[in-house]
Amino acid sequence: LHASRENRRYLILATGEFATSAKTAHGVIRYADDETVAVVDPKHAGKTVRDVLPYLRSGAPIVADVQSGLQYAPTSLLIGVAPVGGALPSSWRGEILRAIDAKLEIVSGLHELISVDPEFSAAAKRSGSRIWDVRVPPPVSIFSGAAYDVGAPVLLTVGTDCAVGKLTVSLEIVRAAHERGVRATLAPTGQTGVMIAGWGICIDRVISDFAAGAAEAVVLQAAAASDLIVVEGQGGINHPAYGAVTLALLYGAAPDALLLVGDPTRNTLEGGFSTPRLSWQESMELYESLAAAVKPAKVVGIALNTSALSASEANAELQRVRAETAVPVDDVVRNGPHALYAAIAPHLTKRRELVA
Amino acid sequence: LHASRENRRYLILATGEFATSAKTAHGVIRYADDETVAVVDPKHAGKTVRDVLPYLRSGAPIVADVQSGLQYAPTSLLIGVAPVGGALPSSWRGEILRAIDAKLEIVSGLHELISVDPEFSAAAKRSGSRIWDVRVPPPVSIFSGAAYDVGAPVLLTVGTDCAVGKLTVSLEIVRAAHERGVRATLAPTGQTGVMIAGWGICIDRVISDFAAGAAEAVVLQAAAASDLIVVEGQGGINHPAYGAVTLALLYGAAPDALLLVGDPTRNTLEGGFSTPRLSWQESMELYESLAAAVKPAKVVGIALNTSALSASEANAELQRVRAETAVPVDDVVRNGPHALYAAIAPHLTKRRELVA
Repeated sequence: LHASRENRRYLILATGEFATSAKTAHGVIRYADDETVAVVDPKHAGKTVRDVLPYLRSGAPIVADVQSGLQYAPTSLLIGVAPVGGALPSSWRGEILRAIDAKLEIVSGLHELISVDPEFSAAAKRSGSRIWDVRVPPPVSIFSGAAYDVGAPVLLTVGTDCAVGKLTVSLEIVRAAHERGVRATLAPTGQTGVMIAGWGICIDRVISDFAAGAAEAVVLQAAAASDLIVVEGQGGINHPAYGAVTLALLYGAAPDALLLVGDPTRNTLEGGFSTPRLSWQESMELYESLAAAVKPAKVVGIALNTSALSASEANAELQRVRAETAVPVDDVVRNGPHALYAAIAPHLTKRRELVA
Repeated sequence: LHASRENRRYLILATGEFATSAKTAHGVIRYADDETVAVVDPKHAGKTVRDVLPYLRSGAPIVADVQSGLQYAPTSLLIGVAPVGGALPSSWRGEILRAIDAKLEIVSGLHELISVDPEFSAAAKRSGSRIWDVRVPPPVSIFSGAAYDVGAPVLLTVGTDCAVGKLTVSLEIVRAAHERGVRATLAPTGQTGVMIAGWGICIDRVISDFAAGAAEAVVLQAAAASDLIVVEGQGGINHPAYGAVTLALLYGAAPDALLLVGDPTRNTLEGGFSTPRLSWQESMELYESLAAAVKPAKVVGIALNTSALSASEANAELQRVRAETAVPVDDVVRNGPHALYAAIAPHLTKRRELVA
């Protein structure tokens, strides 16, 4: 159905951008089970990841080029940066070709597909390299309802907008569960989530008739040997451009509980839409009323992204949202995920009822 | 952007099925501006459409094969039937090839694409025939908000389920508007609607990130010289498999008013899902609460599909739903669209406010 879980050893291509905009690279280093054995960025060659970004706590070496990275026995080259405004710089092309010639798998989240590029695909055919364009969804079926029968409880992160931190919150909840001995699995639904987990489907690239089915397929795959499935959410239910993707996840993943994620400092929606942010209560009601029409699920907690606030502002905001809503509220990056996880854990149970 | 409005003269391929299952053919004959000059069905060759299906009120001849149909100077062969369970019967293949050799345009709603079939595409290349696989969406952009600035009011049909009659209701409302001198335009979003109108986009085949943008594109194209845009709805907001397509239309078409369509005799959702039908009031609230979060729109009327009921049962049901809701209710097929159109017309005005 889709790229299955396997152990990769990543060489990450982050030329010129590792310290700054290589968000996917940072996510993979921080959260993936797959090991990052080296990073390519001539700007910082000779240092380690930890030297440049201490919070990533990785001693992986930074090297000048793919050739120098090969000594660390990578299995895969992960393209961890996106070119600004379209075409791949020719220096990157050379590095990717070098990796293909060295028989590395190429893992790419670029819009411009590696597998259909004539030069790359010809080189991969010669060397036998596999190319995984993570944006391209596998064939999936129409939603069947099989997700209703998954044994483990399913938690879906939902947002007040795109790009508020749903993936990070999902990963932190999985981490908290693991530390308590709960076999939690991330069900990845977007590019960075798929690259971190090494499998999954980019739901927003699926034909809309099949989007709920794709969400279901990811949940079914995550269900093997899981006590808890945490589904990476997408978009926001009131986002005019992306709300449909959000609803495909809400119905297709068939969650038992919802975790609402939002940035309290953001006043308009991503993409410049003037549609204002709903109140926390309105947001909860909209998600819950849709779930109630198909398979009931409640918002069991709120994860605030207070990264734009000072510590005291963040605390005040957490208090304010706690007072405004009747659910546990925390910032899982600022305060760690354990308190929020402990507060929501009693509600992470399987709900068998569909609408009666 | 997509196949533009042009005058076609259709020869409709409906071999063996014209009297029974050729729903698309019936829709095109009944509602399209394009003329159907002949129908291919050897079962009824020698008769007229009216002889076989009086309600279609067409004198178009039924002929035995494509060759016999050519005398009526068609511009296009419309494939008006779908093979049961997959592959095209070889007799149909021969008929399609005959049409291609005669330089007819091929208009097909089949899952199996005519344009990628090696034999058909080679033949089309030789003859210069155009192939329009209506299921294949054109490239579209992410929703931009341009739909908010369309001058004409936009009415969207929404449903309690798939396949309850949203397209028929949309077409009947357009017809009623025309008869009152209102320049109404159907914005087609599904296969049959696209074939009837001769343009449009099958929204359910669009990549989910772009589905709202596709709905917007159809509305923008319909806006030229229109006093009223009637958008063909899809799915149902509480349908687990197709609700996301419905939401893409609700946000992307940016309607000013909604017309709810439902079959009161249907108790479970299409596809065998046990999710029961919402009450009329619940359905209205769900649609309106989502619209209210982005661009407000009210359900201004309900079109019942009472085709499964006797005349007296239908009347009783109409009375019952009128009593249960505060909006005009009618069956626009049984009773004609004029009464319902007259009742909702005062509410078909442009709403300029987004959420405040």
